[in-house]
Amino acid sequence: MSIAALKAEVARRFGTPAVVVDLDVVERNIARVQSLCDSAGVANRPHIKTHKSPVIAGMQRDAGAQGITCQKIGEAEVMAAAGFDDIFITYNLLGEEKMGRLGRLLQSTRMRVAADNPTVVAGLPEAARIGGRDLEVMVECDTGRKRAGVETPAEAVALARDIASRPGLAFAGLMLYPPEARMAETQAFLDETLAGLRDAGLEARVISSGGTPNLANLDKVKGVTEHRAGTCVFNDRMMMRAGMAGLDDCALTVYATVVSRAAPERGILDAGSKTLTSDTGAGLDGHGLILEHPEARIAQFAEEHGFLDLRACNDRPKVGDVVRVVPNHVCVVVNMVDRLVAVRGDEIVGELPVAARGRIT
Amino acid sequence: MSIAALKAEVARRFGTPAVVVDLDVVERNIARVQSLCDSAGVANRPHIKTHKSPVIAGMQRDAGAQGITCQKIGEAEVMAAAGFDDIFITYNLLGEEKMGRLGRLLQSTRMRVAADNPTVVAGLPEAARIGGRDLEVMVECDTGRKRAGVETPAEAVALARDIASRPGLAFAGLMLYPPEARMAETQAFLDETLAGLRDAGLEARVISSGGTPNLANLDKVKGVTEHRAGTCVFNDRMMMRAGMAGLDDCALTVYATVVSRAAPERGILDAGSKTLTSDTGAGLDGHGLILEHPEARIAQFAEEHGFLDLRACNDRPKVGDVVRVVPNHVCVVVNMVDRLVAVRGDEIVGELPVAARGRIT
Repeated sequence: MSIAALKAEVARRFGTPAVVVDLDVVERNIARVQSLCDSAGVANRPHIKTHKSPVIAGMQRDAGAQGITCQKIGEAEVMAAAGFDDIFITYNLLGEEKMGRLGRLLQSTRMRVAADNPTVVAGLPEAARIGGRDLEVMVECDTGRKRAGVETPAEAVALARDIASRPGLAFAGLMLYPPEARMAETQAFLDETLAGLRDAGLEARVISSGGTPNLANLDKVKGVTEHRAGTCVFNDRMMMRAGMAGLDDCALTVYATVVSRAAPERGILDAGSKTLTSDTGAGLDGHGLILEHPEARIAQFAEEHGFLDLRACNDRPKVGDVVRVVPNHVCVVVNMVDRLVAVRGDEIVGELPVAARGRIT
Repeated sequence: MSIAALKAEVARRFGTPAVVVDLDVVERNIARVQSLCDSAGVANRPHIKTHKSPVIAGMQRDAGAQGITCQKIGEAEVMAAAGFDDIFITYNLLGEEKMGRLGRLLQSTRMRVAADNPTVVAGLPEAARIGGRDLEVMVECDTGRKRAGVETPAEAVALARDIASRPGLAFAGLMLYPPEARMAETQAFLDETLAGLRDAGLEARVISSGGTPNLANLDKVKGVTEHRAGTCVFNDRMMMRAGMAGLDDCALTVYATVVSRAAPERGILDAGSKTLTSDTGAGLDGHGLILEHPEARIAQFAEEHGFLDLRACNDRPKVGDVVRVVPNHVCVVVNMVDRLVAVRGDEIVGELPVAARGRIT
């Protein structure tokens, strides 16, 4: 089948907009990341927030991944139900409802969580009690991103001691998510923290780093034992801009139809913020890259309208044309739909449920 | 129950983040909009894209709405299955897959669609053929928004003639979605188009306008017979800024937990772009309004992290606090979740499935 025939077939069978993923590209991406981690001697623990699919997580496991990463308990529940047994939830979990769910997961699944403050640590023993076995807890360290994470090695050591002192909790190590430009600062933070832990008689068995862009920095922080990356399984315009992917590495495109051409210099796509989302991606121009018309600019969104600025296009799409859009940020686009259309090259091979879509708790 | 007790109960039963809607406020909003339409002598045809719930659409119908508005066939399918019989899809529909679905809807449901170009019009008779009865078609007119819609009265008349000439299609009238600042231009466009239609022997039985902000302009364009508004059922920060709602009119809030306070001047909420979305809302500062801490700024999002800037707060939240966030744009937030938690005042009364969530085709 040609690409033109594939586009027509996707539109005919699924309608547009359709979120389409090429499994050949996915497999190449998975193999490349696994190879990078293997070469650096770090375990690959992919973040499933990007695909939210046990099928794709299984492809990552089969390629050599050691465990998976989730951001929310709801994602972990889906993955545990699909048979994944080594799950790291990289998030501060709090409250009776979440401790109950975490505890029930722990009954059947090896779980690891992160914490950056004593309030979170104080709540976790209840999950371990329900789970009937020890819960591994990592100290989340912030080396400059200013998101979650303790800000100093002294706080990291104090929190590790707190964890180690609690019934049912096992201090497992340190979680990093370093800004790409702060590798030296991250190394210094890590070294000072490890020295403090040694003085406290504690061992950081796992030192976990993360982020697709940091796949370029796997050798920059000594001591890291595992890496968590999500976006690299599909890639997007942000990863292209970060130098982590070329167009051929972008596995996911949104097939959309041009539904209006009310004026020569503009048009409307049937994909808006309820499909491609309003995520802009730092420094990117427009809301996506149209493969067939790279000079076209997706200038603005309504919920179901993509506003096309065609002034820079010589060859302009006509009403009824189906185009493929590489999104700015793929992780949030996947989360908008209940299923992905799976292709290999220009053949449709099936559908993939986004099983953990919308699992925000 | 107090609000503090309600927040604790929502967190305990549903976990956070939770998308919570107060049905008392919803009923007030529905009654107010119906009263505005009644006073202006225009039919109220609410746009269900905001709530995507047959239950709430039923409340609107019971209050006096005459039919409903959908943006996508998938939304109309959900509503038709729930028994709604008069549905206007305000969108250019194209292609074999969509004509098949539209035709099947038409078999059981009175359907009206919009078109702004001859390619769309040429496809619609196939839906009418499948449906076995006439399909009502409106000409979408653009009076300055530069989205979809013909740009001139002459084009509108020509497209109306085209519609009227096609087997199975009935020209029903004109669809407007005027910019709030262009009422005089809209009136001029409408008057000239109506004159052209008369000359062509065509009648615009329906003249449909829309938009929550245009509820303030119901008397500004003579000849309008119905109004489509969506956001006013829940309201949000954008509608507050537009002067269409006060805080007491905002029916929907996202309950979120403060999960990190790594530094005195900042914190992290467990709601990010996968809950509150990246929709900024023109001119709004930050990504939502925190009722308990209005001076706090939701400065930035990761997918599951809301970055709180607390510098302007004297009273700062602590880890574990549950807060309520009024979103910038409520329509996209509802679309992130499969169910809303329904409350009345400070009592939980049930759950509402977002039945048409993610129906992007």
